[in-house]
Amino acid sequence: MSRPTTRPSSPARSRRSASPHRKSAPNSGQSSAQIGRMAQRDSARWVVGIHSCTEALKVRPKGVREIWLRSDWTSSQALRELQAVASDSRIAIREKTPGQLDAVGSGHQGVAVAMNQSPQVDWEKLKLAETSLVLILDGIEDPHNLGAMLRTAWLAGADAIFTPTDRAVGLTPAVCKVASGGAEHVPVEAETNIGTLISKLKETGFWVYGLSEAGRNRPWDLKLAGKIAWVIGSEAGGIRTATERACDELVRLPQASTGSSYNASIACAMALSETCRQIGKPS
Amino acid sequence: MSRPTTRPSSPARSRRSASPHRKSAPNSGQSSAQIGRMAQRDSARWVVGIHSCTEALKVRPKGVREIWLRSDWTSSQALRELQAVASDSRIAIREKTPGQLDAVGSGHQGVAVAMNQSPQVDWEKLKLAETSLVLILDGIEDPHNLGAMLRTAWLAGADAIFTPTDRAVGLTPAVCKVASGGAEHVPVEAETNIGTLISKLKETGFWVYGLSEAGRNRPWDLKLAGKIAWVIGSEAGGIRTATERACDELVRLPQASTGSSYNASIACAMALSETCRQIGKPS
Repeated sequence: MSRPTTRPSSPARSRRSASPHRKSAPNSGQSSAQIGRMAQRDSARWVVGIHSCTEALKVRPKGVREIWLRSDWTSSQALRELQAVASDSRIAIREKTPGQLDAVGSGHQGVAVAMNQSPQVDWEKLKLAETSLVLILDGIEDPHNLGAMLRTAWLAGADAIFTPTDRAVGLTPAVCKVASGGAEHVPVEAETNIGTLISKLKETGFWVYGLSEAGRNRPWDLKLAGKIAWVIGSEAGGIRTATERACDELVRLPQASTGSSYNASIACAMALSETCRQIGKPS
Repeated sequence: MSRPTTRPSSPARSRRSASPHRKSAPNSGQSSAQIGRMAQRDSARWVVGIHSCTEALKVRPKGVREIWLRSDWTSSQALRELQAVASDSRIAIREKTPGQLDAVGSGHQGVAVAMNQSPQVDWEKLKLAETSLVLILDGIEDPHNLGAMLRTAWLAGADAIFTPTDRAVGLTPAVCKVASGGAEHVPVEAETNIGTLISKLKETGFWVYGLSEAGRNRPWDLKLAGKIAWVIGSEAGGIRTATERACDELVRLPQASTGSSYNASIACAMALSETCRQIGKPS
């Protein structure tokens, strides 16, 4: 699998967003709603939760813009350990109120980290690679699902995730939390046109499989090798018709009942598990 | 796969709980907190959400004790369709305020159903069956995870799910919602002692596989056949040591990094997917 590279956020966007949080302090008079709006406008990628924040600090300490800890962090062993990791990288922490942390993202466990860097897709490496595994998520709107797929993609050795720019969730703090560190390893790239992306992937040597009930073969009926792209549809409507047509092949998962269908992140896991089995990676 | 049978709730428990909701009406003066506490004490299994409630009405209309719809249900096509299904089975609906529905479970989409019946494990059928697939969830506490596994288990053709009585989530409204109908098909049985359960399953002819990083083989290194039980550990600690020792074999999932581990419901999906592949069911 080719490794993603990292690129910093663009200077213009960094400048625009660098100030608001820098000067804020606990009880500075800003309401949670104000902070929440600032975090949304912010160009940084915010991560919440102990595990995800620790992974962010470990993987790319130079990409950390700031770390927020709840003001009584010394009373928590996990937060003290996280502060020690930050201190090793000479990153100062900022103490915040629970309300300020809540405004960044729920389930923060007393910590939020603003990242100026994220993993990026390296198309040159994808071109040169003999084997690769990527995901195309055709309209996932649930942060829990995107986070779950990012976590699974990381552990299953995927090189990239592509999402549409519109009507899909991006790398929100909640997504990064559920990804449990995966957001530091697998690039998530938003594409304005999934059809164009699929054409580009095909030109790069990828075989594009779409998970759909309309498929004839199951994942284990395929010969998976080389460069593989799995397309996973949205929670509500599955893969869009235009995307289905762009796939090289539609693949179905066996179901004991037609009364429901597998959750998107579960379907993704089943496809990735079978891919791991066939390509023998990771071992 | 053997089919579960259904048993009604015990009369004593039904009697104790039959009254509170029966006489309540919108704006009856009960607070949401009061209703929430009643729903918790209630022996009925409460289901929320359009898809899960519709499945409950279709699969076991005789097990429905009552249906709550939000008072403006006529303005929603999905709720009108659900009312029509109820009407076909001559089940009266009760109109409720959003607050009363919120108190049963979040994400209710305007509907909650109280069920007096749930699928039950049929041990006689498990004994006589030549093939079977069951799950043992060793301490899953997150309703989202149990719901996701129940949904996947249903679609992958599993016969039963076993959970410990203590320190594990049960069939809450949130679990039934995420299960997306799975709670009407796969029995979920709480066991006081998982070790005793595993012994009983072994005597019944099951081979018990525990998912653990300590395993040597991956799922596809096994010969899966006959009666298969998969043990999935808790979100925090995995399978407990005593449970690990009781398993016939520990099985690991391949990971590209040791920085995290697969979410429990994702690990479960990977094990079930490989089981479906090997046993050829469902097709």
